[in-house]
Amino acid sequence: MIHIGLDAMGGDFAPLEAIRGAEDFLRENHADICLHLIGDEVAIKNHLTAHPLPENRYRVIHAPQVIEMHEHPTRALKEKPQSSISIGFQLLAGGKIDAFISAGNTGAMMVGALYSIKSIEGIARPTIGAYMPRENGSLGLLVDVGLNSDCKPENLNQFAILGSLFARHILNIENPKVGLLNIGEEEGKGNLLAQAAFPLLKENSQINFIGNIEGRDVLLDKSDVIVCDGFTGNVVLKFAESIYDIVSRRNIKDEHFDRFNFESYGGVPVLGVSKPVIIGHGISHATAFKNMIRIAGRMIETDLTGKIRESLS
Amino acid sequence: MIHIGLDAMGGDFAPLEAIRGAEDFLRENHADICLHLIGDEVAIKNHLTAHPLPENRYRVIHAPQVIEMHEHPTRALKEKPQSSISIGFQLLAGGKIDAFISAGNTGAMMVGALYSIKSIEGIARPTIGAYMPRENGSLGLLVDVGLNSDCKPENLNQFAILGSLFARHILNIENPKVGLLNIGEEEGKGNLLAQAAFPLLKENSQINFIGNIEGRDVLLDKSDVIVCDGFTGNVVLKFAESIYDIVSRRNIKDEHFDRFNFESYGGVPVLGVSKPVIIGHGISHATAFKNMIRIAGRMIETDLTGKIRESLS
Repeated sequence: MIHIGLDAMGGDFAPLEAIRGAEDFLRENHADICLHLIGDEVAIKNHLTAHPLPENRYRVIHAPQVIEMHEHPTRALKEKPQSSISIGFQLLAGGKIDAFISAGNTGAMMVGALYSIKSIEGIARPTIGAYMPRENGSLGLLVDVGLNSDCKPENLNQFAILGSLFARHILNIENPKVGLLNIGEEEGKGNLLAQAAFPLLKENSQINFIGNIEGRDVLLDKSDVIVCDGFTGNVVLKFAESIYDIVSRRNIKDEHFDRFNFESYGGVPVLGVSKPVIIGHGISHATAFKNMIRIAGRMIETDLTGKIRESLS
Repeated sequence: MIHIGLDAMGGDFAPLEAIRGAEDFLRENHADICLHLIGDEVAIKNHLTAHPLPENRYRVIHAPQVIEMHEHPTRALKEKPQSSISIGFQLLAGGKIDAFISAGNTGAMMVGALYSIKSIEGIARPTIGAYMPRENGSLGLLVDVGLNSDCKPENLNQFAILGSLFARHILNIENPKVGLLNIGEEEGKGNLLAQAAFPLLKENSQINFIGNIEGRDVLLDKSDVIVCDGFTGNVVLKFAESIYDIVSRRNIKDEHFDRFNFESYGGVPVLGVSKPVIIGHGISHATAFKNMIRIAGRMIETDLTGKIRESLS
């Protein structure tokens, strides 16, 4: 049986939406998965009376503290060892759960992922990606989107491997094309980082490198995995999020721009750490939680972490 | 009398659209401006029969060569001294014209601006910005958008000054707010460049620094001048351009997204060089050329270059 830990207190609409997400997931998915709902026991159980979950497929793990959204990550983790995030990482590190999901304090989730469970040996810098919606309905993966604001060329090369494995096994893209986000198409273009990363990516036999892509190609299916430093990636992600806000404010109804609602994707995994960790958007609703549980399950079933280990050996 | 040089051969629809732009400008604007149309004399004169310009307000300067859009900038400038771009910079350097505009080979225009007419003394790195449309109808300025892909903190500080002077005198924003594009709001966030640039901007009494802004704020009126390295800025600009492409492809009619058609703005000046140089979009039509002439005229009338010099003294 697979054990997935869910921070029931994480996110602006927790615990209700986390529990509704768990409910939806368990209704639709009959795999051998047990959800561990971590948070205030009374609050969780109150919601469970309105949203009952099938017996034997969930447990409630009491966590009397909550790390709030704007707390300082390291300080909060230290001062609140009984918070849902701290307990989630303790369970994950101790092997009681196989994956941990939270839509709570992003910084605390990142710090927890990096320091509680460690990186996979050989991974210099774990990374976090974001989905990029394309007009054909598929998703690309932009990586890194903020975990590593300053990068070395070899970091980008590892992001390409991590992103490719994720795209292959989780997004089901057979031979994912990798593009280097740059400011010109030809080799030799770009800042020092991009110039130095290009030859590494070109010589990397583990990926399907298609060369440089530009800002205008991020939303096209030119490449499935778009590699960049976390500063550039974060700016692009947040810019894309703001497009959805504008589209919504202006009452534009469009199927494709609906997919710029990044909340609906549920969250993105931290790639390169030794166990699956998924960080959700603060404004996550039930669908987002359901999708995060689904992705965590798929990461465990496909043994993505093992495949990352193999790729480094 | 102000003399403005216009590369009649630059852009995908030259010389016709360049001449139509000149025609529109001279019809609407009665200032003491003389346009110098630089390019193939026969081709220009042919178009002038259909689009006659008022006498005494234009001259035709014959340039028998053309630098094509995909030629290597430095090589082309060297090998084609009789091209419209080469002659334009010769006239500008020699004081025969007061400003030079082209929608031709962007790289050649940048190289020409940097090496034919030099930087203003004290400016370490001239820069190039792009307009960012805001929902309230106004424009922000994102700077740099590709001239400087690797930057030092002091470069960003100068971009802030150059952008502020442009916003004040050309965009008519009284006390332009300057934001540092970053991946978090608090001081201390970001990559090493942003972290080091923040205190410089904060201490700079010549600008109205409002702090960090994020990718989601680029299209808001939180700040009027958005400062970043040219790598990040170029990725953001091209990403924004692709939004217009998507909106057009999906037949979405919206006044605000219409303003993502960056072509219509006509082009952006190179800031920090000793004379006004404006680089247009390759796909410029008449309106774009008209706007570029208007901005060049305004840069001369307001003596923007002189104001930049003063700010450094």
